[in-house]
Amino acid sequence: MSILVVGTVAYDAIKTPFGERPHILGGSATHFSVSASFFTDVRLVAVVGDDFKPESEQVLVDRGVDVTDLKRLPGRKTFFWKGEYGFDLNTAHTLDTQINVLAEFDPQLDESAREVPYMFLANTDPVLQRQARQQSRARFVALDTMNFWIEGNRDGLVKALADIDLLVVNDAEARELAGESNLIRAARVIRELGPKILVVKRGEYGAALFSDHGYFATPAFPLEEVVDPTGAGDSFAGGMMGYLAASNDTSDAGLRRAIIYGSVMASFNVEAFGCERLLELTHDEIAGRFRQFKALTFFEEAEFNGRSVAVR
Amino acid sequence: MSILVVGTVAYDAIKTPFGERPHILGGSATHFSVSASFFTDVRLVAVVGDDFKPESEQVLVDRGVDVTDLKRLPGRKTFFWKGEYGFDLNTAHTLDTQINVLAEFDPQLDESAREVPYMFLANTDPVLQRQARQQSRARFVALDTMNFWIEGNRDGLVKALADIDLLVVNDAEARELAGESNLIRAARVIRELGPKILVVKRGEYGAALFSDHGYFATPAFPLEEVVDPTGAGDSFAGGMMGYLAASNDTSDAGLRRAIIYGSVMASFNVEAFGCERLLELTHDEIAGRFRQFKALTFFEEAEFNGRSVAVR
Repeated sequence: MSILVVGTVAYDAIKTPFGERPHILGGSATHFSVSASFFTDVRLVAVVGDDFKPESEQVLVDRGVDVTDLKRLPGRKTFFWKGEYGFDLNTAHTLDTQINVLAEFDPQLDESAREVPYMFLANTDPVLQRQARQQSRARFVALDTMNFWIEGNRDGLVKALADIDLLVVNDAEARELAGESNLIRAARVIRELGPKILVVKRGEYGAALFSDHGYFATPAFPLEEVVDPTGAGDSFAGGMMGYLAASNDTSDAGLRRAIIYGSVMASFNVEAFGCERLLELTHDEIAGRFRQFKALTFFEEAEFNGRSVAVR
Repeated sequence: MSILVVGTVAYDAIKTPFGERPHILGGSATHFSVSASFFTDVRLVAVVGDDFKPESEQVLVDRGVDVTDLKRLPGRKTFFWKGEYGFDLNTAHTLDTQINVLAEFDPQLDESAREVPYMFLANTDPVLQRQARQQSRARFVALDTMNFWIEGNRDGLVKALADIDLLVVNDAEARELAGESNLIRAARVIRELGPKILVVKRGEYGAALFSDHGYFATPAFPLEEVVDPTGAGDSFAGGMMGYLAASNDTSDAGLRRAIIYGSVMASFNVEAFGCERLLELTHDEIAGRFRQFKALTFFEEAEFNGRSVAVR
């Protein structure tokens, strides 16, 4: 099955201890689309300015992304974000944000877009996320958000959450949204707001899944060099939703595999700036890293038996 | 096989958001011994004052711990630690530390103690750890340390590390010891100092294993209520070393299972104050939680195939 993603297409200026890129293609919908495109058909709904270069659009087209709904606003500039990471690479320091076209983003889905069975609402104003969701007849809808909206429009966010299937946020955001420091209790609070499925991204510690089937967690892929974390969360969501849509399997087993594919795609994403790594990625590399995840989390059933090994 | 542990036996005063205990049995060797005693025979080397109550010693004896080498120093008081935890329960705020008998701790192993095949050097002065290690003919030696020694006696610690098999530290300590923020690179630096095996405790994020066989990681057991984290690290080490000694299996498969048993024991330890939970623990509960770890980390091999599921 195919996926519709509503989000941002942007230009980023990024500096990390490993180098810098003054002007590269970025944005939540870009990272998501490129990642998900390895698994299934992706249709992108976003807005750009008339500074948006044909080469940038071609990057998406080359990945097979349907850009019918990539709207150009004349006389406007594309969303721009400038950020820097220190040596721990955990926190982005935003140096500049130019909203530009985003101020006028008002996603309108045509009849064919409404029928796309999987939908991803990338991080943006929860009011827009809700409007987009209400136009869709998707069978499975996931949403990403961030601390900015949790703090700035909690009511709008809670409304948007009421009608989705899966929420994906990071650790701190989950705790903040629930007002609860224990993540297991926070997950229960959040799942009562609407999404039956909660996926928590934990950066270098991996990811966790909370659903009616219980709890699942995976560590992250061990990387010696993280070059640029920008877009890791969206690449994660792209791998996760891409696999769910491709397999059309949202059972517990499907969700667990989807979390691993998300982790695989995020781990590749951070190996280079922006989308650079994903754009040269192969299916064999994806399958290989999935197998590595199996290897690095596997342990055999216990030989230990309370009665026989233990002395008392 | 049996284990010799060298460490502290203490009285703790602990306050957490869930209650307080003004005077309970604690110390690294206590938590370790109680935990490991579920798997194998444990012999404890530690020092206490003449305020050490017979009931406290009886707790260890009831768990089958060999207290032959629990030395009482007349006219001295037992090591005392007073700490408090806030709502996040991640950081202990030390309110009072009375070293007391520890100032005169000088572990002397007799002939039979030297022959015990597994040895755990619980967190204490690395100079003492090294002296104890040099007296032993153990086939497998593990060591725990903390930021206090990494900062206060780095040279002494590096010397102690040269002659051990396994180092167990937490995340921040591993990075500090290696002077390297990336944990995967930090692990390589540390393993070049001596210990072929590095186990990193990550609190609510689980634990990781680095060895010649590669990398293994597990999430922590999901707990809605952490009552008191005191001794979690030592209970972890007790479960890990207890299983290794009981099975005498330090292969990769054995180490992986040992990490899970460590995680199981730590997860029980934090459910109540001090050793209270472990003292009422059953073998069935241990086996049950081990199976739960399998369930919460398991995912099926991929159905995804680069060519067939993915469209491009």
